[in-house]
Order: sequence, then structure tokens, then C-alpha cells
Amino acid sequence: MSTARTTTVGIIGAGPAGLLLSHLLHRQGIDSVVLELRDRAYVERRQRAGILEQDTVDVLRASGAGARMDRQGLEHHGIELRFDRRSHRIDFPSLTGGRSVMVYAQTEVVKDLVELRLKDGGTVLFEAEALSVDGADTDRPTIRYRHEGAEETLECAYVVACDGFHGIGRRSLPEDLLTVVERTYPFSWLGILADVPPSCDELIYAHHERGFALHSMRSPQVSRLYLQVDPDDSVDNWSDERIWDELDTRFAVDGDWTLRRGPITEKSITPMRSFVAEPLRHGRLFLAGDAAHIVPPTGAKGLNLAIADVTLLAQALTRHHTQGDEAAIDAYSETALRRIWRAEHFSYTMTTLLHADPAESGFDRELRLSHLRYLAGSEAASASLAENYVGFRTN
Amino acid sequence: MSTARTTTVGIIGAGPAGLLLSHLLHRQGIDSVVLELRDRAYVERRQRAGILEQDTVDVLRASGAGARMDRQGLEHHGIELRFDRRSHRIDFPSLTGGRSVMVYAQTEVVKDLVELRLKDGGTVLFEAEALSVDGADTDRPTIRYRHEGAEETLECAYVVACDGFHGIGRRSLPEDLLTVVERTYPFSWLGILADVPPSCDELIYAHHERGFALHSMRSPQVSRLYLQVDPDDSVDNWSDERIWDELDTRFAVDGDWTLRRGPITEKSITPMRSFVAEPLRHGRLFLAGDAAHIVPPTGAKGLNLAIADVTLLAQALTRHHTQGDEAAIDAYSETALRRIWRAEHFSYTMTTLLHADPAESGFDRELRLSHLRYLAGSEAASASLAENYVGFRTN
Repeated sequence: MSTARTTTVGIIGAGPAGLLLSHLLHRQGIDSVVLELRDRAYVERRQRAGILEQDTVDVLRASGAGARMDRQGLEHHGIELRFDRRSHRIDFPSLTGGRSVMVYAQTEVVKDLVELRLKDGGTVLFEAEALSVDGADTDRPTIRYRHEGAEETLECAYVVACDGFHGIGRRSLPEDLLTVVERTYPFSWLGILADVPPSCDELIYAHHERGFALHSMRSPQVSRLYLQVDPDDSVDNWSDERIWDELDTRFAVDGDWTLRRGPITEKSITPMRSFVAEPLRHGRLFLAGDAAHIVPPTGAKGLNLAIADVTLLAQALTRHHTQGDEAAIDAYSETALRRIWRAEHFSYTMTTLLHADPAESGFDRELRLSHLRYLAGSEAASASLAENYVGFRTN
Repeated sequence: MSTARTTTVGIIGAGPAGLLLSHLLHRQGIDSVVLELRDRAYVERRQRAGILEQDTVDVLRASGAGARMDRQGLEHHGIELRFDRRSHRIDFPSLTGGRSVMVYAQTEVVKDLVELRLKDGGTVLFEAEALSVDGADTDRPTIRYRHEGAEETLECAYVVACDGFHGIGRRSLPEDLLTVVERTYPFSWLGILADVPPSCDELIYAHHERGFALHSMRSPQVSRLYLQVDPDDSVDNWSDERIWDELDTRFAVDGDWTLRRGPITEKSITPMRSFVAEPLRHGRLFLAGDAAHIVPPTGAKGLNLAIADVTLLAQALTRHHTQGDEAAIDAYSETALRRIWRAEHFSYTMTTLLHADPAESGFDRELRLSHLRYLAGSEAASASLAENYVGFRTN
């Protein structure tokens, strides 16, 4: 039995992109329905990124979704690069005209946005599996989905797929329209959450001949740490002690510094990929976030790109829907892709700069060390890293 | 029949490095003998680089070798990047605190230095073929060489090999001491000299999907232009008309710009290579310039590195010879290699940024375009390019 529901914007995926889009549209008086495959508890528990660019902070704050972020988020004014057993700080405000980033976990952003959407009377259907997008090249596209055992149809004026890399959104564009480029990397990240105060006030990006390590945090009580591992490695090979010992080795510096150890509450291994599908639009179907593009996490760009996509798209859809202005939706794909490719380039550069590639040549290894030393010694190079990290404005 | 000649510093190679070293030592009261395989006319005709970094200009000027350079050289305050049919200027002085470069051909530097050395009573033996360096790990190393049909020996306190990539200098270090890293590129440069005034006051580095092109000049009357070609291409395949047509295509911009054509007086194809041999010293044998390292010409660094090497080495040898100070000669290799690797990294980056690689993936191509657009839009990125181009000081 099929029943039809109607909305202006049908959104697939209740990650930060889909939820924020729904929220931003609501503030423009445009209704939407969000369809999410998983249940609410799962969505609010999913561990992902934790660094918000200045523009991301600004859009959350300006839309009224930033209250808890402003109370609990940790503003960071720089990062530390470690290599050759030395530390080099990259200071964001002085290198970027006062910009910085906020440490506030994606999972917290999602909780805030779910709460806000429900408080504002928004519709977020959890455990609703999108099955297909039909009529994208008509004025009334539909999403077929399964919810509470029944197959249903959502009739829309626009469909936005924020359903991630494995979602149906991207696959709903005609195959001959899409151009896909990608790159895989010969390493993965072993990530842990630990109940221990961070050992440093800022993030530490460490390059060691044994591999990359990242010191990050979720809160003043919870540390988040990563180790470069082989792509075919397993968490079963990594006892807590082995993890802490390896982190100790990779973060070691000449002089005083101690990595605090504590109970590890989560371990997982994440592969690294660069991926871009173009264009981001077919008729009235739009792609945003991971549905269209993936970056390796080294540059902390994935969440921020998703937020940038839907911020742009909310404006474009509003203009089209309220004023019939085609220009904004016509420009969406190209405008978004400029920022996406900037982030892809930055993420690729940070990734190859900081990881040890077991198959690389001696020439590549020496180039990397020269690049790292240059970054530490050049204000221009530091400023370039900083402006990309806080979010370079391509538009 | 063998006769022995004695000097303090035996120098192999009368390129700019060997000649300048001999000149700088002379100014410190240290005698040297330069052995050069070719005759004087050949050495003074050899076409090579033409961009002098600020530090290179400064050392030539300060040592009294810059008079004709100052009269005839063309000071350049920037370069132009071309891609997407648009031009973007990188302004050196405003981005680097007032530094710039000088266009003055290497072959003119060589003429000036030969004349100066001979005027000062220096010994430059042309058509003298160095055969071996012996006793590098003793206090009295010797160079065996053939001159005017006879085999002779030059007894020295120090030997410096400035004899280029194919010389005997590098091969005179113990094989197990040397570390060699290198990279080749899937393209070469077709270079021409043309009797026509340059079409632009500054150098133009153009990226086009058909390949790289460079517009440069030797003087207000002579243009020097380059085209990326296949490594196995031949000048026989390139008629004058085909060369000008291809240059027209690759330099094309929206708006007014005309490439001036004129009689082509020289054509040659040069392969591209990155190469570094370490260390630069064994006992009393030192390597400088192309004998130890090669960069692809895209960053205009080869000549400048050679000059930087011998500037450093002249100071180190003077301190050791006059004061018995070991520290300076002990530090030579490591100090020089920091600058060498900076130039290797910059040259590699410029090369991969500006050339079209026929085998590259779509991802790599899009990364390059994003990098180019970023360079054109970011002051920090432009400043990083500029400071490397005018010569980044690693010391």
C-alpha cells in the first residue's frame, strides 16, 4: 500500500548537511521532509569529524543553531606540526586576519540540529529508507521510500541527496552525466576515543618515519587520537598498550612533553579516499556533502564542505522557489565545486605531506622533509596552510 | 711524461660555479687552478639558464663581477602565470619585501668571469681533461689531467668538482658513501632562441592542456621560448612554423596579446631530471653545482644553486685554510643541502603544476587546476611562489 506525502524540498539523509539544510530552509519559510535510514539514537552517536571552520561556526551561529556550540565548543587558534622531534606552531588569527576554528564534534552538531528541527515542528523521518528518486528532470520529482514496513512516496519540488558516499542520491543521476574521479591511499587511520583530558590545548599533526599521528580532543575530558596504519590492519592487532606506546613514539619531541593515557572507549579503522562526482545537479535533484565528494580526514574538511554545500544550496533553492530565479540553482554545482576542489587539493597535500608511504622513493621522502621544514620556516607557507585550514573562500 | 703543478684549490670545470669559486678565493688571497675540458669559445657559447636570484646578483655585484650585468641585465619584478586563457601576475617586490630577479644569461656570466679571472692573473686551463681525483682523504689530494697531449698532476690542498652531471667529480667519492635519489619526468623542453624582441616585459609560465610553454628573453632583441614536448621527440619534427603555431596556441588568452615571430637561430631539446647526490664532501674533495644536483629548469634554480654552493664553499675553505677552522667545511654539505632540497621541492612543484602529464588521472588534473586557481587567488600562495622564485634563504 502506498500513500503520498508532499513537501517542497525532499531531503535524503539526517547527517549535518541534511539537517542544516532543512533548518535553513525552514528559516526562509520553505518546508522540507528529511528521510533518514537509521534511527535517531544511531545518528546521534555516529563518531565523525570535530573541527568546524570559521564559516561553519558562523552559519550555525547566524541560523540560531550555535547556542550549545558556543557554550561547549573549544575555540582553537592554531595547530602544532611535529617532525624531526620538534614542534612548530601555526597561529591562525595572526596568519589569516583573525580567523580560527572550533572543536565541537559532528555528533553534537547533529544532536543540536535534530532537537532544533523537532522543536520547530520539522519533519525528520528516522528509519525511512530512500529507495529511488524519480522524475528529477520534471517539475515534481518524487522520492520512493520504505517506512514502518510500507512503501511510500514523497512528492517534492526539489530533492536534495545528503545521503553520503553509499547513498542512492548520486546513483540517481544519469550515469552518462556524471564524471567521477578518485584516489585511494596506501594507509588508513586507527582512531580512538579515550576518557582522559587532552595532553595539549591544540591539535598536533605529527609526521614520524613510522607514520602519521594526530592528537585531537572531543571535550576537556575526552581525547581523540589517530595513528596511520596499514589499510588491511585490524583493531584486533592493537591492544590499548600497543596504541599508547606507538602514539608515544610518534609524538616524541626533544624536551618535556607527556602523552596522558586513559581508558580507551572506542577503536576503529577508517580508510582514506579522495573522490569527486560532478555535476552536483540534474534537473531538480541536487547532491551535497559526502554524496558527491570525499576527502581524506587529514585536512578536517569533510564536514565543513557539507555545511558549505547546503548553505549555498539553501540560498539557491530559496531564490528559485520564491522568486523563480534560475541563476542561483544553475550556478550551484560550479560554485560549490570550486570550494570542493580547493579542499580536495588541501586535503591531498596535507595527507601526502604528513603520512609515511611505504612504497615511496627516497626522492619523495626528502621532498616531504624539505616541505615540512619550509612550512616551519616560511610565514607565507604557514599562512597558506592556515588559510586553507580555517576555510579558504573561493567564492 | 708527467709534470706536477701545485695550487691551493684545484677546481674542475669552468662553468659559472668553478669560475666564481676561483674568483671568490682569489679575493681572499687563495690561489686556485681551474681545469676545463672544453675550449674557451665553447664555454662562452654554451646556452643555459638566464634568471639570477637576488642573492646571485648580490654575490656577483659584491665580488666585483657584476658591472656588465648591471648595465645589460634586465631586472624583473614579477612573472606571469597563464592558464584558463587568463593571465595572473605574481609581483615579487610586494610579496617578498622588495626582492626581485635579474634576466642575464649564464653564458654572459661565464664570459664576465673568464675575463675577470684572466685579468687578475688567474689560471684557467682550457682543453684540460680531468682524469681522476686521488688522495681525497689525505691532506694533499691530486687531480690527474690531460692537457696539450700530456698527462699531468695538479697537487692541491683542496679539490672542488664543479664539473657537472657527467663529470668525474661525483664518481670520485667512494661509492658506499654516496646516496643518490632521482626522478625523471615524462616530458622534455624544446627550447629556441629567436632574433625578435620579447613579446612581454616579463616571463610567462603558461599551462595549457596541450602542455607547458615558457616565454623568456635573453636581451631586448632576443627572445627565448620553450615548449613541453615528448621525451623522445626530435627537433627535426619541429619546423619554425609549427613551433610558432604551437606557442600561439599555448599562450592564447582572452583579450589582446600577440606573440611576435622572428628568425629562429637555435633549437634544442632538453630532458628533465631531478637528482641529488649526498654528501657533498669526502675529506678534501667537495662537490658543487650540477656535479651533485640537478633540478628541472621550471623553477630557474640550477645556476642559482651552483652559485650558492660555491659562495658557501669559498667562505668555508677560506676559514679552514687561513684559520684552521674545521667547523665551516664540516657544515658545508648539510648547509648547502637545505637550500638544494628547498630548490628541488620548488622545482618539482612548479614542474608538476605547469606541465601536462599524458598519463595522469582525472583527479590529478583537477588538483592541478585547483592549485593554479588558488595561486592566482591567494596572496599567501603567491607569496610562497615568489619567495621561492627570488631565492628562499634556508640558512
